[in-house]
Amino acid sequence: MERAIPDIVVGRLPHYLRALQHMSLEGRRLTSSQELSERLGISAAQIRKDLSLFGEFGKQGTGYQIDYLLNQLRQILKVNQIWDIALVGAGDMGSAIARYQGFTDRGFRVVMIFDNDPSVIGSQIGPFTIQSTDELVVAIQSADVRIAMLAVPAANAQEVADMLVQAGIKSILNYAPISLNVPDDVHVQYIDPVIHLQRMTYYLE
Amino acid sequence: MERAIPDIVVGRLPHYLRALQHMSLEGRRLTSSQELSERLGISAAQIRKDLSLFGEFGKQGTGYQIDYLLNQLRQILKVNQIWDIALVGAGDMGSAIARYQGFTDRGFRVVMIFDNDPSVIGSQIGPFTIQSTDELVVAIQSADVRIAMLAVPAANAQEVADMLVQAGIKSILNYAPISLNVPDDVHVQYIDPVIHLQRMTYYLE
Repeated sequence: MERAIPDIVVGRLPHYLRALQHMSLEGRRLTSSQELSERLGISAAQIRKDLSLFGEFGKQGTGYQIDYLLNQLRQILKVNQIWDIALVGAGDMGSAIARYQGFTDRGFRVVMIFDNDPSVIGSQIGPFTIQSTDELVVAIQSADVRIAMLAVPAANAQEVADMLVQAGIKSILNYAPISLNVPDDVHVQYIDPVIHLQRMTYYLE
Repeated sequence: MERAIPDIVVGRLPHYLRALQHMSLEGRRLTSSQELSERLGISAAQIRKDLSLFGEFGKQGTGYQIDYLLNQLRQILKVNQIWDIALVGAGDMGSAIARYQGFTDRGFRVVMIFDNDPSVIGSQIGPFTIQSTDELVVAIQSADVRIAMLAVPAANAQEVADMLVQAGIKSILNYAPISLNVPDDVHVQYIDPVIHLQRMTYYLE
């Protein structure tokens, strides 16, 4: 059943969740597909259609109950729990990710950090001791971690991705500017600042 | 005319551009909406419809000429030139952005870096001398920079965004986990790793 939802729809749900979370923090109780549309730049009809794939969340005329829809979306996206993340790369980007404040209350926490540089292995980033990438496969398998963030140079990214796959990782968020080859049952998402910048230059004169 | 294109369509064009750039680097000459669809997870009909808003790029039966479409998309997105970027924040994230290899040949380069920490002002990140945020408005105005990347703590992000707006910045890429309030003529995009992570947890068991 769930497998029948197009990935492009799944990709919009976190945006709905984030908008609803902001509204909830503002103390709001009700919203509408129109308001979500204005916040997100997605048509109200599309939002209603997307949400209707998962159930009857709104009522004609009264709209959506924010906290109810929030909890439903958390369940659908499986972030009504905390997922452990293995972070690979303890350079500038990895250190920034390890200290990132935006994971709180959104379903994730970094639990281990790896690097291949002997000069940083054993040192601390906040509460974490940086481990050698040589230990990566065993450590991830032992802890049964399923999600990894990749913050290594482009030249090393595929090699590390292969190790992550071997360790049983099923979701990789890749910060390196390179496409990864992984088996079909592993999902990869890319953090690519240029995609966002190019969307804005369209509007510049 | 261009203003009539929905922002959601504009947001897909950089993804088409990136896929075509990869194909071009692979030495490929022709592609199809079907192939783009498989690479991007966007329906072939949607891709054809999006591209048809900007002109006649493909021929029924032969598909799209990769380099031609690439150049057209570069013109449409205005990245057939190099845009200068002001980077604010010289911590871990800012340093990682300053060294990021993924801007090359995609229309952007960082040209100035600001921070408010006296202990880093005046020091170097690669070719850049970190300037004080006190100099931000004048420096950006003098150099006529229109795009900024924001890599400061959440607590400072709105204050810096206000300065960027005052300096004439029209596009902000925000790495801080906070929504920014800006005038209608300023575009903001967010780098939010959680959006990507939540899209993948949907598929985890």
